[in-house]
Amino acid sequence: MTDQTLHFNRTAVIGVGLIGSSLALALRERGLTDEIVGIDQDSAVLDRARALNIIDSAAPSLEAGVKGADLIIVAAPVGATGAILAELETHARDGAVIIDVGSIKGDVAAAAATLPERLFFVPSHPVAGTEQSGPEAGFASLFEGRWCILTPLDRGDDAYRDAVDRVAALWRAVGAQVEVMDAEHHDIALAITSHLPHLIAFTLVGAADDLESVTEAEIVKYSAGGFRDFTRIAASNPVMWRDVFLHNREAVIEALGRFTEELIALQRAIRWGDGDALHAAFERGRALRQAIVEAGQETAAPNFGRDREDGDGSKED
Amino acid sequence: MTDQTLHFNRTAVIGVGLIGSSLALALRERGLTDEIVGIDQDSAVLDRARALNIIDSAAPSLEAGVKGADLIIVAAPVGATGAILAELETHARDGAVIIDVGSIKGDVAAAAATLPERLFFVPSHPVAGTEQSGPEAGFASLFEGRWCILTPLDRGDDAYRDAVDRVAALWRAVGAQVEVMDAEHHDIALAITSHLPHLIAFTLVGAADDLESVTEAEIVKYSAGGFRDFTRIAASNPVMWRDVFLHNREAVIEALGRFTEELIALQRAIRWGDGDALHAAFERGRALRQAIVEAGQETAAPNFGRDREDGDGSKED
Repeated sequence: MTDQTLHFNRTAVIGVGLIGSSLALALRERGLTDEIVGIDQDSAVLDRARALNIIDSAAPSLEAGVKGADLIIVAAPVGATGAILAELETHARDGAVIIDVGSIKGDVAAAAATLPERLFFVPSHPVAGTEQSGPEAGFASLFEGRWCILTPLDRGDDAYRDAVDRVAALWRAVGAQVEVMDAEHHDIALAITSHLPHLIAFTLVGAADDLESVTEAEIVKYSAGGFRDFTRIAASNPVMWRDVFLHNREAVIEALGRFTEELIALQRAIRWGDGDALHAAFERGRALRQAIVEAGQETAAPNFGRDREDGDGSKED
Repeated sequence: MTDQTLHFNRTAVIGVGLIGSSLALALRERGLTDEIVGIDQDSAVLDRARALNIIDSAAPSLEAGVKGADLIIVAAPVGATGAILAELETHARDGAVIIDVGSIKGDVAAAAATLPERLFFVPSHPVAGTEQSGPEAGFASLFEGRWCILTPLDRGDDAYRDAVDRVAALWRAVGAQVEVMDAEHHDIALAITSHLPHLIAFTLVGAADDLESVTEAEIVKYSAGGFRDFTRIAASNPVMWRDVFLHNREAVIEALGRFTEELIALQRAIRWGDGDALHAAFERGRALRQAIVEAGQETAAPNFGRDREDGDGSKED
């Protein structure tokens, strides 16, 4: 496919939060669309997105916003995707390419089963984000070097295959690397790499909050001992994450089972003073981190580069 | 106390790793000592520390190294502290000030119970560090803005109280804020703010390592979904952490019990589709992170400031 074909006249962004804003900014920066219309339940969000020049105009309704759009980006929390797709079934123009950006793909595929063939929905999950929310948090380079997973629908027509190619090209154009897999495997892989880590971070924050013997002031003071690392992802959008867990229940509970087994094994090693077992378990972390750094998914700088004011920041042990 | 009194002729650093090296560099930078002698089980570490100008000389033995030292810094893994204190009982000169830097204080206080009154041991825990190890990882500003907890021994003599004041002044001189508490409370507070987070990070890495359904390559690729945040602390020194868990068993198991209760409650909410319970739990993260940022213990930049190439990096939602 050539670059000329990768152009959209009118892009509708449904949900102008961190991801929707970032993708809008990236599309605009690369000249991939002539016009961007924003749609959001919250009119204050649309006002801010307009003021920040993330969108060209704010639509009064989904129907008005998607009218004539040849690219529709569904960037709302996963729980809203089914209802949005149902509206698009009525209001999207023939031939429109639709993508979502959600963290769950199985339920989305099920919700998309009734879409007419005239619409080309290519479920997408850019594995990128920050702990921040809202249009102010968006930035055009968010997807650079990150992976975007596509889980195409079960459609054999050439026009759909072309749409998948165009969507892959779109994600590459904004800097992402593209992987294609089925929705079920996506949900299992992300349960361990994303959903479980978030659940555990939320859990740790909750457990700390409930202690009587240690004050919140102490937790804050001594958070540099490790706790603070968890608070980044525990500060993520609560609505988005609620929906993720409600829609990926089985895979998360399966991953959680693995985690709990491992935790109980380590707890037992602590209780029995089994230093060798602890040491063996603790040695695995370095190799995996090294692999993540080498794959360009993490910074090699100590402490993520935070609070290191001298030194060259490039050493890795 | 005045600044003139805060000077040491000869400082012995036992264990020239991340913390020992950083403290040596900080003391030297502030002119707080004339001479620094390094002592380490690993002679290659001493060679590197010497080459990096972290220490002035490498001692062939602990006895030789601490001879004449008026400041002795014990920066070995916690499991070695008892044996080192026993050697210091014989070899340290009268009036020497001894500090450790370990993450456990109860066991250290017990080990120090037999120290003679002529030695002034002030247990210290600087709550600072990075995921890296060894002398190359050391840097003088590591302690700036961090908290250092002192857990003085149960001694009523004025000379000891003076020593505690000097040690507090030492930590302040290298940039730390000082807090004094008893060893037992220290171990409980750190169990939740540091030990449990590390245990959970090690556990998550282990659970991911054991999956058949998801490859390591996938974990690496999609780690930006949250997993990578855990790998920083899971890459910490395995020997140091083995010792922490062996020496703070009870407080860690207690904190772990809280964590497990919370985790099971969230697991139940996921299983039963209780979105309100999940949302309520997830909302707590932002406030705590905000408090940690405001206390100067965390960067406000999104993603810890990593991989954000545009934007001003100062926005917090």
